[in-house]
Amino acid sequence: MFPFRVIDEASVRKLLDMKNVIELVERAYTLKEQKEASLFPMVFHEFAPGKADMDIKSGHLKGAHIFGLKLVSWFGDNPSKELPALVGFVMVLDSDTGVPKGMMSGEPVTLMRTGAAGGIGAKYFARPESENLLLVGSGHLAPYEIMATLLTMKHIKKVTVYNANSYERAAAFCATAKDKLKTMFLPPYQNDQELYQTLLDRIDIEYVATDNIRAATEEADIIITATPSHKPIIMKEWVKPGTHFSCVGADMAGKQEIDENLFSSARVFVDDVTQAINVGETKVAVQKGLITQNDIISEIGSVILGKTPGRLSDQDITIYDSTGISLQDLITADYVLKKAEEQGIGTVAQL
Amino acid sequence: MFPFRVIDEASVRKLLDMKNVIELVERAYTLKEQKEASLFPMVFHEFAPGKADMDIKSGHLKGAHIFGLKLVSWFGDNPSKELPALVGFVMVLDSDTGVPKGMMSGEPVTLMRTGAAGGIGAKYFARPESENLLLVGSGHLAPYEIMATLLTMKHIKKVTVYNANSYERAAAFCATAKDKLKTMFLPPYQNDQELYQTLLDRIDIEYVATDNIRAATEEADIIITATPSHKPIIMKEWVKPGTHFSCVGADMAGKQEIDENLFSSARVFVDDVTQAINVGETKVAVQKGLITQNDIISEIGSVILGKTPGRLSDQDITIYDSTGISLQDLITADYVLKKAEEQGIGTVAQL
Repeated sequence: MFPFRVIDEASVRKLLDMKNVIELVERAYTLKEQKEASLFPMVFHEFAPGKADMDIKSGHLKGAHIFGLKLVSWFGDNPSKELPALVGFVMVLDSDTGVPKGMMSGEPVTLMRTGAAGGIGAKYFARPESENLLLVGSGHLAPYEIMATLLTMKHIKKVTVYNANSYERAAAFCATAKDKLKTMFLPPYQNDQELYQTLLDRIDIEYVATDNIRAATEEADIIITATPSHKPIIMKEWVKPGTHFSCVGADMAGKQEIDENLFSSARVFVDDVTQAINVGETKVAVQKGLITQNDIISEIGSVILGKTPGRLSDQDITIYDSTGISLQDLITADYVLKKAEEQGIGTVAQL
Repeated sequence: MFPFRVIDEASVRKLLDMKNVIELVERAYTLKEQKEASLFPMVFHEFAPGKADMDIKSGHLKGAHIFGLKLVSWFGDNPSKELPALVGFVMVLDSDTGVPKGMMSGEPVTLMRTGAAGGIGAKYFARPESENLLLVGSGHLAPYEIMATLLTMKHIKKVTVYNANSYERAAAFCATAKDKLKTMFLPPYQNDQELYQTLLDRIDIEYVATDNIRAATEEADIIITATPSHKPIIMKEWVKPGTHFSCVGADMAGKQEIDENLFSSARVFVDDVTQAINVGETKVAVQKGLITQNDIISEIGSVILGKTPGRLSDQDITIYDSTGISLQDLITADYVLKKAEEQGIGTVAQL
């Protein structure tokens, strides 16, 4: 029998902070580049097309001595049963012995590591002096994408938020954005006055909802797309030179957020080539023959390690297609387990 | 947050009994045949070739409103660290909502459901009056295969045990077989005197180790192979007409227990066609062109449901290739969860 720790959603939220998660996700990306990590094939099953599905993403972080999986279910009818539509968990095992270490609610891990991915995309590919962030999508992910980008980019002055289905929801989000970011993300830094003040200043900017996605695109330095869209929301002709895209929404066949024609002339980076061309934003562009797999400049780990240059000039359009890989979840979950053990959080069962 | 039950190895052992597991596994097979169940693609990863690997088998039992997965790790060096080489768990989720129900140690589930599979193979394909059982392999699985077969076959008089690497281990197994079977499997039936006595009588037969696999094969009515062998142990020319094989050892590419030439003239049944031709005992025969996928008579569920006849005559050689499917694990684990809930066993954590 083995001791096995189970950590609930609220505790996972408390144990994670965005600054650390950004560092963890960068580490996962670089371990992958160094062949110290590998993804296993993804398992996907539709219980009822368009109504309920699940996927299992698994992998091995040799460099961190862990392997494991994240299972995420989506049941569209759940809210009518007073259950969340998305339910999931992350399971971490020791890759030197195969012994399970623990598991935790998947939702907070997913939100944090997906936010981090968007911010890391901006850090390595956007122009450093970028001031205007456009967020496409005002859902659960929105605050995570914004906070991560405020952490990685020093000069953001304005966040524009667009919701393709509802201007009102974008407006409602913006009305409380500052307070929300402060409440959700700053508590972990209360003992570090300097960092706390820096982040408070970075949060203290303008948040504007828009119903004019064309004008917002023309103005943006950084565009993060975080929607479940199945058709392009942003068209190529609206995009000014120098713009960076972090696309985090597309994670399964059929999803698409930006005009596939953008890929022909952009510098394209991904988290994982195989996933990007199978389920990512890159899929449509490759499928239509606008680019080939070889036109993907590199995976992001190579840029973080300085092996591949990101942007070559201020005129480049850069795209970071983040499909979301199990390694992000595993490294984040392992961090949660370590903190939980130190602090005696969660339930220790026997397995 | 959801309540989530974790059940340790000893408790899982206590909650399972072979008679019930045989019924559960038959139900999983028939649900599959009725398209009320499906297997998801298997994930396999080798950490170090021949030294450490893991697999994730998952699936959906629509008819039982559950889905889930079993992850099993094998780390050959573990025993030197005082850890078991095989470590695993089964996770069960509600397929109407995606909510995780619970998890448990995988080892006792695997042993019971694999034993049940061998016995179910005998039940549906062996001659009903079979008296001689030959067990190839004297490892962890041996008592489970024997007990399941004694439950499904009324006339067994002798069990012959063969270990290809060590006659001594087979002899040691036989020396304590009766006591072992009684201690491991009969306690759950202590309140049913009639059943208890019946099973006690069935156990009270001859157990003989052999170092002559040819003679043992010539004598056997039922042969169960439960080894990790990578080459055939039983040759076609030794096998008498009417023999039934339940092959449960082969569950990954490279494994083989019986002469592939047996398949040309036998009636071949499997638990899952895709798995059988990819990782099962059937793989080599198909690969060498001795049979094609179409020569597999059917999956076992069809025979249990009476849609396909099993054996046609007392002269048929029958082969049941049981690769082991996630549905067996899931239905067994779900039963454990229900019993554990009734009896308040295990640890209830929040997820």
